[in-house]
Amino acid sequence: MSVTAANGFEASGVAAGIRPSGLPDLAVVRSVPRAVGTALWTTNRVQAAPVTVSKRHLAAAQPQAVLVNAGVANAATGAQGEADAVASAAGLAGELGLAPEEVVVLSTGVIGVPLPLAKVLAGARAASAALSPDGGAAAAGAILTTDSGPKVAVAHVGGFTVGGMAKGAGMIHPRLATMLVVLSTDYPLAEDEVDAFLRPAVARSFNRISVDGDCSTNDAVVLLANGASGAARDDGAFAAALDDVCADLARQVVADGEGATVVLEIGVRGAATAAEAEAIARRIATSPLVKTAAFGHDPNWGRVLMAAGSAPHGEGFARLETDRLTVAFDGVAVFAGSPTGASPELSGAVCRIDLDLGLGSGAAAYLASDLTYDYVRINAEYTT
Amino acid sequence: MSVTAANGFEASGVAAGIRPSGLPDLAVVRSVPRAVGTALWTTNRVQAAPVTVSKRHLAAAQPQAVLVNAGVANAATGAQGEADAVASAAGLAGELGLAPEEVVVLSTGVIGVPLPLAKVLAGARAASAALSPDGGAAAAGAILTTDSGPKVAVAHVGGFTVGGMAKGAGMIHPRLATMLVVLSTDYPLAEDEVDAFLRPAVARSFNRISVDGDCSTNDAVVLLANGASGAARDDGAFAAALDDVCADLARQVVADGEGATVVLEIGVRGAATAAEAEAIARRIATSPLVKTAAFGHDPNWGRVLMAAGSAPHGEGFARLETDRLTVAFDGVAVFAGSPTGASPELSGAVCRIDLDLGLGSGAAAYLASDLTYDYVRINAEYTT
Repeated sequence: MSVTAANGFEASGVAAGIRPSGLPDLAVVRSVPRAVGTALWTTNRVQAAPVTVSKRHLAAAQPQAVLVNAGVANAATGAQGEADAVASAAGLAGELGLAPEEVVVLSTGVIGVPLPLAKVLAGARAASAALSPDGGAAAAGAILTTDSGPKVAVAHVGGFTVGGMAKGAGMIHPRLATMLVVLSTDYPLAEDEVDAFLRPAVARSFNRISVDGDCSTNDAVVLLANGASGAARDDGAFAAALDDVCADLARQVVADGEGATVVLEIGVRGAATAAEAEAIARRIATSPLVKTAAFGHDPNWGRVLMAAGSAPHGEGFARLETDRLTVAFDGVAVFAGSPTGASPELSGAVCRIDLDLGLGSGAAAYLASDLTYDYVRINAEYTT
Repeated sequence: MSVTAANGFEASGVAAGIRPSGLPDLAVVRSVPRAVGTALWTTNRVQAAPVTVSKRHLAAAQPQAVLVNAGVANAATGAQGEADAVASAAGLAGELGLAPEEVVVLSTGVIGVPLPLAKVLAGARAASAALSPDGGAAAAGAILTTDSGPKVAVAHVGGFTVGGMAKGAGMIHPRLATMLVVLSTDYPLAEDEVDAFLRPAVARSFNRISVDGDCSTNDAVVLLANGASGAARDDGAFAAALDDVCADLARQVVADGEGATVVLEIGVRGAATAAEAEAIARRIATSPLVKTAAFGHDPNWGRVLMAAGSAPHGEGFARLETDRLTVAFDGVAVFAGSPTGASPELSGAVCRIDLDLGLGSGAAAYLASDLTYDYVRINAEYTT
């Protein structure tokens, strides 16, 4: 049920005619009881109009509904793009009896093309009429672009539920952006508490995945919490459930990465600091040489060493001493200060790479997709 | 004539049996008159034994000869690797009547495999016997691995000459590293002057190219200067000639990048600072999405914006304001605060991307290869 699994949430997905394919391309999620919520946004310096507008809305009011369109990213569209984002939020607010600032707008699709406002407004009207506690699947389907399928996750814990839907990742189409995630829960939270739960969950999940190392202009993760479960507070259980849903969606995004055939699970421990562990894990996760080796099922520890040794950190690279380093593929040590001679068979859809730096207690995990012919095909074949 | 174009240099290349193919795999370059010299090395935290040993030699003495082997990188080989690098330098020194510290050793090839010392020593003997002022081409051929051909450049300026040879780039084979460059000049320089000339020339050339964003364990650029031209000092002319040779070799390295079909020339100006211009240029040069678009001859400015907006700088990203940004492909403006609607035909082997950020006077240039099916094939197909 994805984003409507928690009590008090409704959603819908409709075909608004934004995508040329005619497939569903507009989704609405709203909380029936008053909700609190927040969002985390792309840190790209080029930010799409819906990002700018939604940030302003969240600064002014608690979000009660989310409007998502696929097909057009409304990015690099100037003042008109911003006016269109404002107008689309106002349109949905009018349908639902909300203040415009209570609506978060998210867009994904082609960069540099104006938002077809009339279609979005008509779609918002149709989607509002279709809102239902059973609409989670329809919403999850209507936010996709060239994703191979919907990505949903739910955690039922004690007396409350966390649910979510995602799209992405990669820039799947020319000029097309975006990972979008909408999370909902009926766990009781106060306004000023949402951010403190969402931030670490995202840091451990969506900020630890890489398809191609590129960071879009539209990325967003939104969390709405309406307390409709009536459950007692158990913040540890809620944080764990939120972590689980985020981790589950993040993994689905990687597995559905452009052209992906293998999910790389990268674990780094023993680094001098946690920040250096993360730098090394990210560098391995984004190395084209490591990712092509994974595609070729090649336990190529030489490339892992090369990547680990050149992980940007501060003004230089993260600390690493070759003598102390061990590297394992799928649990088999292939390097331990020097080559072990082992060469494990890698045939699965998951390739696990573990590094122990032997320097300290810094640890980090990362998920990545492999780099394949299909990645090149998908990203090179289309022309504008 | 490459590395022997300048007066007083001799070189040779021989087949020492290190590469299974039986192709030439060992080169020697030496200065007949006493030379001064220096080298710049990979900044990877994992450094090959020849890098460690040669740094020590250069700290102790001025380099008079360079020994290069292809086939084995002597990286991640522990204490034995270091002993082998020391022994190979001593072997060549014995042949040439030099102190061991006067020899720089460079290796390129498979990581984690011991250096076949007996073959290297026999090869050094044969190469010493073959040294000749006409040996530049043989030397340039003997340092290659799966490069498609030798890379040489020469600048004759006024009364002196700068020449050089290069190999690389990319990790062309599984566990194979390296860009190696040997430069020689008969321009008169003192010991303490070489570094000050080499450093900026490398910063503007070899540090501004990217095939796959990966930084090997063995990269090295060596410059020997023997003053044998007898030319008068004209430091401006020498710096310009050194720049030209480095830029020429750097471009050859990119054009011969793994699977490359297009050279991307990236120019950034108007950045807040030069460092931010370089960060943005590098980010574009290493973006898989920009590089696949280049392969598809797609003037995809949306991906350029995405990359430019997420160029790491300090704790965040380099400054950029979408409103002020202009982007041109092959001289045709496609974005100027908003899309211009232009969509230039890109069909050449060179794709020029210019950005003007409109913020300041920071500028930087970068060269990159495209990301192609062949890149994936070359790097995924081999298994260890």
